[in-house]
Amino acid sequence: MAGNTFGTLFRLTTYGESHGPGLGGVVDGCPPGIPLAEADIQKELDRRKPGGSSASTSRKEPDTARLLSGVFEGKTTGTPIAFHIENQDHRSTDYSAIKDLYRPGHADLTFDAKFGVRDYRGGGRSSGRETVSRVAGGAIAQAVLARHGITVLAYTLELGGVPAACADPEGAQERPFFSPDPEAPAKWEERIREAKSSGDSLGGIVQVEARGVPAGLGEPVFDKLDARLAYALMGVGAVKAVEIGAGLAAARATGSVNNDPITPTGFATNNAGGILGGISCGAPVIARAAVKPIPSISIPLATVTTDGQPATIVTPGRHDVCAIPRIVPVLKAMMALTLADFLLLQKRI
Amino acid sequence: MAGNTFGTLFRLTTYGESHGPGLGGVVDGCPPGIPLAEADIQKELDRRKPGGSSASTSRKEPDTARLLSGVFEGKTTGTPIAFHIENQDHRSTDYSAIKDLYRPGHADLTFDAKFGVRDYRGGGRSSGRETVSRVAGGAIAQAVLARHGITVLAYTLELGGVPAACADPEGAQERPFFSPDPEAPAKWEERIREAKSSGDSLGGIVQVEARGVPAGLGEPVFDKLDARLAYALMGVGAVKAVEIGAGLAAARATGSVNNDPITPTGFATNNAGGILGGISCGAPVIARAAVKPIPSISIPLATVTTDGQPATIVTPGRHDVCAIPRIVPVLKAMMALTLADFLLLQKRI
Amino acid sequence: MAGNTFGTLFRLTTYGESHGPGLGGVVDGCPPGIPLAEADIQKELDRRKPGGSSASTSRKEPDTARLLSGVFEGKTTGTPIAFHIENQDHRSTDYSAIKDLYRPGHADLTFDAKFGVRDYRGGGRSSGRETVSRVAGGAIAQAVLARHGITVLAYTLELGGVPAACADPEGAQERPFFSPDPEAPAKWEERIREAKSSGDSLGGIVQVEARGVPAGLGEPVFDKLDARLAYALMGVGAVKAVEIGAGLAAARATGSVNNDPITPTGFATNNAGGILGGISCGAPVIARAAVKPIPSISIPLATVTTDGQPATIVTPGRHDVCAIPRIVPVLKAMMALTLADFLLLQKRI
Amino acid sequence: MAGNTFGTLFRLTTYGESHGPGLGGVVDGCPPGIPLAEADIQKELDRRKPGGSSASTSRKEPDTARLLSGVFEGKTTGTPIAFHIENQDHRSTDYSAIKDLYRPGHADLTFDAKFGVRDYRGGGRSSGRETVSRVAGGAIAQAVLARHGITVLAYTLELGGVPAACADPEGAQERPFFSPDPEAPAKWEERIREAKSSGDSLGGIVQVEARGVPAGLGEPVFDKLDARLAYALMGVGAVKAVEIGAGLAAARATGSVNNDPITPTGFATNNAGGILGGISCGAPVIARAAVKPIPSISIPLATVTTDGQPATIVTPGRHDVCAIPRIVPVLKAMMALTLADFLLLQKRI
Repeated sequence: MAGNTFGTLFRLTTYGESHGPGLGGVVDGCPPGIPLAEADIQKELDRRKPGGSSASTSRKEPDTARLLSGVFEGKTTGTPIAFHIENQDHRSTDYSAIKDLYRPGHADLTFDAKFGVRDYRGGGRSSGRETVSRVAGGAIAQAVLARHGITVLAYTLELGGVPAACADPEGAQERPFFSPDPEAPAKWEERIREAKSSGDSLGGIVQVEARGVPAGLGEPVFDKLDARLAYALMGVGAVKAVEIGAGLAAARATGSVNNDPITPTGFATNNAGGILGGISCGAPVIARAAVKPIPSISIPLATVTTDGQPATIVTPGRHDVCAIPRIVPVLKAMMALTLADFLLLQKRI
Repeated sequence: MAGNTFGTLFRLTTYGESHGPGLGGVVDGCPPGIPLAEADIQKELDRRKPGGSSASTSRKEPDTARLLSGVFEGKTTGTPIAFHIENQDHRSTDYSAIKDLYRPGHADLTFDAKFGVRDYRGGGRSSGRETVSRVAGGAIAQAVLARHGITVLAYTLELGGVPAACADPEGAQERPFFSPDPEAPAKWEERIREAKSSGDSLGGIVQVEARGVPAGLGEPVFDKLDARLAYALMGVGAVKAVEIGAGLAAARATGSVNNDPITPTGFATNNAGGILGGISCGAPVIARAAVKPIPSISIPLATVTTDGQPATIVTPGRHDVCAIPRIVPVLKAMMALTLADFLLLQKRI
Repeated sequence: MAGNTFGTLFRLTTYGESHGPGLGGVVDGCPPGIPLAEADIQKELDRRKPGGSSASTSRKEPDTARLLSGVFEGKTTGTPIAFHIENQDHRSTDYSAIKDLYRPGHADLTFDAKFGVRDYRGGGRSSGRETVSRVAGGAIAQAVLARHGITVLAYTLELGGVPAACADPEGAQERPFFSPDPEAPAKWEERIREAKSSGDSLGGIVQVEARGVPAGLGEPVFDKLDARLAYALMGVGAVKAVEIGAGLAAARATGSVNNDPITPTGFATNNAGGILGGISCGAPVIARAAVKPIPSISIPLATVTTDGQPATIVTPGRHDVCAIPRIVPVLKAMMALTLADFLLLQKRI
Repeated sequence: MAGNTFGTLFRLTTYGESHGPGLGGVVDGCPPGIPLAEADIQKELDRRKPGGSSASTSRKEPDTARLLSGVFEGKTTGTPIAFHIENQDHRSTDYSAIKDLYRPGHADLTFDAKFGVRDYRGGGRSSGRETVSRVAGGAIAQAVLARHGITVLAYTLELGGVPAACADPEGAQERPFFSPDPEAPAKWEERIREAKSSGDSLGGIVQVEARGVPAGLGEPVFDKLDARLAYALMGVGAVKAVEIGAGLAAARATGSVNNDPITPTGFATNNAGGILGGISCGAPVIARAAVKPIPSISIPLATVTTDGQPATIVTPGRHDVCAIPRIVPVLKAMMALTLADFLLLQKRI
């Protein structure tokens, strides 16, 4: 447990603050011979960019990744792959309000409690901006998975309490909000307009799905595939619940309903979310993350100053209304990183 | 990710199969000078014993733990603490039915897919019996937490779809099913009788709560306290969802409702479940686990043989109807192991 | 760095004190399908037994290993393999002399400095007896290596300053002191008699050699094969220097002499000890460990009491004169554990 | 064992190839509140620069480190500290000779055996240039050690077989070759001229010493302080032997001579090199590394082509005659990284 490193054999170490010089990471353990270019990373970073929907602000973050090592003549060499994303939009904003106040729902108070100091500019390391490094690392993981015929999809099942029909997950990548349902985006835009006009914010639910995962991935007893997925997804800021397969509903079902019958051609249902006893069973691996509403709102809230005095705060500046859709490629990246690691681990057997 | 080791500084490594010679574990990294006796471990093991309710079978498992190292003159020495629990009830049952069939909802198929071999006797390593080592390790973790004024409670919030009022969590430990509600056990007994008579099984929801946790525990960005709790709890067999604080409900709330206001005397609400930005904030740490119904049922289900032929299975032998209440001390142990590890990690700062 | 766990994918965790209930360990990550019986472990443990030469005392340590998990129908299953060795000879000796005095050359002072407490009975965890668990774990590693055609030899090159000719390393296993030279044991017996009669002790040099190691093992840059071997061997109590291939002599050679020319059939010389750039090159892997003299002697030495007062000590009781030959199977085990781990790591590529 | 990450709590992950875009690293786990500036890193990097003696070539490597994260208002924040050093001197040299030939004593053959591909430009990842990241990381470790009153010295004890008197280790830092002896550099220059004129190369011995190390650092049984130092130093390219304290000489001493007597004011001698039972005892921690001669020489040597045909090679281009003095700050950095990690680990107790 190293805080800023994810994985055992396929390992991503990240760094960077919201308003420091830049963010980036190092992937150690990527197998050699995998075709990889800056464009592969850029494609995923672009999916995380604001501007795709009314849920996000228009802060300009070109987020251009530069590859620094580990690739030679267009292929990985087996040595560490480092990438760096220079911060662009870090004009010297006035942070005096945030500097001496703890924003409710944010990590201001806890970073001070933990480290005794805090880079308060834009949330520092606790900023959602930290996730660019996850997305870049996840792009490299996806290059590895592609070699093994594994694809990862991520899409929005619910936003502000309004559900989508899971009609076309394959098409979600190209739709606003990564919606699997052509009808949902309009409703969600409306929901967001409402929230924005009242100065409030919204949450939602994202599903991540991996297809082509061979049976056998996962390391019982503590490092079950579902345990590591829960760790991977819950480690993304704003996620407050993780479900596997039927998830919470399984707790209310009976065994005869929840058990997935096995047939010579595969599982008849997939309540297990593709995982039995912590090991992939060959069915699609399915997980869901519940995303809390953005804590930065324009509605005044009680808080305290850094020296413990009562105060009232209205988060200054523009802020996203909902972490969706920007969090969707991040959760996809975490699934990819998890599976790439298990894939390499399984080769030892 | 070592499969059978949990933790970074406070580390539990476990071993053992359901019907092998025994089960046990080694705790490495326990601080010296902590009072510890076999009785401390036994007390927690006894809570996991069957017989407390109609949900469990009457298989006799005395589960007596023997301490093998790391304790001198009644106190820990800082060296590894090993414990062993000898298996008693492993008469040579007839496993021929299970040997050549994959039980739906069990890990039979996936262990074969992963390892190519499988100790089919009673589920081998994938048996719920594996959790005795977690409970024993968790007892040692609780001895460490006690020194820092941290206590962990675990109680049942729901069984077979029937909820309990969270009226008296402190008293849950002494109540059937670890119920926080004096009224619930009778309803749950009834629900279990129903399920048993139809040969079916049930799931439920367990809440785990830690009090006295100081602000500052958790290691952003990947090893957030909530991420590690999700990992710890989801790694227990049968758990299909983990929530922190408001959990899934947070995804449907607005920011103005979900944000916990901060006052000079603490947080006004605890939707965050005691964790902000992945770091404990001083409020009680609260997590919930959704437990699926026991997959062993007496209702016939489609499956395949180990060589892929269609078959029908009725799980032979006696089996529990619900993993609750036996899973409750296991989840408590996982919370304790997680916190003990973070406590030691935080001392480095 | 977990103190009592060795390895990344093939991991040995050990426990136990010299005069506690027993010692043992857990091997996690052993591949499935490897034939393994208690006898395989016993054979290596027997090689570590005292009595093979005049260098060791006649303390009775039957050291019988019991397998507790991870083996089914004579083969490993891929789950943790636990073993336990019950202590036999732990009669309640009078340790009052040692209890309040720090023995020079021993870990008494440093265990107190580190942990604040110390199991002073026979050295507790710092006793050479700890190495039984290494030998047992190494026996399991050797079962894995055997599958890949790798064999490990260990033999004594020097004892008390008297060198052996490296004439017949293959026969060393069956000779006193694991001598590769039929002539050396007689000289060493004589050297030991001398030292014993003056109440003194001796050191020596042990070479470990692995044959059949495929090119490609080792993880640059920090986890080079030689770096991990140095770690493995230096971690055995009493070892004060580790050399690879030409070792110290390489520092005094010129490049034209030290470089090993490469021919179509292999390397012309092996100054590199089978490792180039931290990766095995296909030649035998060769390492040497310098073993200090046993610190327990009958010659009075200045020391301090645990409360800092000056004192004189003569180590009470019988003690070995030289760690050789008992340390030889331990060093062999460490080479085997190191290689088994790298072998599994290399499979990921 | 992650290959490119060093340490457990104070962790350095490095990346970069000799002729790629650049090299760098991420330090995760550095405590907050430590004063740190680019100049602290630059000072150590400058010590590694060629030009200090006739032993190194005049390749221009300004090696300017840029800090990318983890420092705010001149102090560390507890978040990852990333640094990057842009490669300057990577003109498109003609590597066709090296591309298809395996240089004896280099890692060309083994990188191919391991990864199947190789960035042959200047040795790629196996180049000595990789060590800039170690030196930069070590500078951060030294900032941590300074806070605890620990200082690390490194100096040359021998070059080309010519020893230095260890007369003034404190002054070594400012002397050519980091010599502790004012007389030695002239002899070493002469020795180097000789070797250079015959197209050959030289090795040597470097001692690293840490003062002010508190008693108690080290993690028995596998992660003894000496075991981790051996790992740290042997992991530097070209090192073929590591000694602790008396080292090899201890194997030839008797116990009565080798044991360090303890007095109320400290140890009377320091044959143990400041480490007993794998734990620091309060005396200076002393280790030595034997450095092999640079394998690149102008004397023709037998080798094979990448497709196994016999060939003769003369390493093209300019090359250093001896890794000393440039390796000296690298070994110092490795001692510092090791101690910083143990210092944080010890705080858990």
